[in-house]
Amino acid sequence: MIFDKLAGEKQEVDARDLQTILNKLLSKRPDLRSNGFTLSTCREMISLQDMDGTATLSLTEFHVLWMKIQKYLGIYIKADTDRSGTIDAHEMRSALQEAGFTLNNKIQQSIALRYTSDNLTINFDGFVACMMRLETLFKMFQLLDKKKTGIIELSLQEWLCATLV
Amino acid sequence: MIFDKLAGEKQEVDARDLQTILNKLLSKRPDLRSNGFTLSTCREMISLQDMDGTATLSLTEFHVLWMKIQKYLGIYIKADTDRSGTIDAHEMRSALQEAGFTLNNKIQQSIALRYTSDNLTINFDGFVACMMRLETLFKMFQLLDKKKTGIIELSLQEWLCATLV
Repeated sequence: MIFDKLAGEKQEVDARDLQTILNKLLSKRPDLRSNGFTLSTCREMISLQDMDGTATLSLTEFHVLWMKIQKYLGIYIKADTDRSGTIDAHEMRSALQEAGFTLNNKIQQSIALRYTSDNLTINFDGFVACMMRLETLFKMFQLLDKKKTGIIELSLQEWLCATLV
Repeated sequence: MIFDKLAGEKQEVDARDLQTILNKLLSKRPDLRSNGFTLSTCREMISLQDMDGTATLSLTEFHVLWMKIQKYLGIYIKADTDRSGTIDAHEMRSALQEAGFTLNNKIQQSIALRYTSDNLTINFDGFVACMMRLETLFKMFQLLDKKKTGIIELSLQEWLCATLV
């Protein structure tokens, strides 16, 4: 299995290993358009899944991440109704809904601005990066909202800590 | 001048133009180690400087950004005391101070985790990305801290808006 090959003796994969694995996945899927996963996307995915703070993933953590990617792959393929290999802003709206994210217009526009490539469409790598980022942000909000009031309060240092991850 | 060449008739440069300009700058500086500026770093620089919300820079906006990059270049060169072309975690601390950022240890560690490359050093492109990100985050905090209490309050939608930029 690919995990064993990359994890080596330490039995952990780091961001660069993850990048290799994901770009290998892409090379087998001509139905997905992609610019390849960047190292920073892979780092973000790891930080979302890494429960023990090692900045690497154990086999169990990798398995959970892999299941997520498969889920997002399914949503992406389903949203790409014209089978172009990429999704446009309209298809992105249904994909976000399908993934369970209810977002107002302003946020959907921010997402479009940040994750579209040259031709104003979202490639598979951007899509996964976006979904992982949203998951992280929702999770962080819940952690920061200790009293469950729906409003978080942050000092400058807390704000920097939260946004520099 | 390079701006005119890239800005074209519209007299605005976008993220991809900025990437071309900055990587040209790097190619002339063998004293700086760099992996090249990524498109996402260039996008972030533009959003920091872009006052009219066009996601492009006018000549004036470009000039302000260029001055900032020159300033960070000076700080980077000064911090690189061993003339390795790159800076380590220790040199990064002085660089942050020199740039006027007072940050606690936890945040300095987050920065190191996010911006170091393979050999645990920070290259010039990572350094500029980091400085620009810090500038954005400080500026955002000030905008969000409407009552100037030093504490910001955010709902989930506001949190997403602020962190998805």
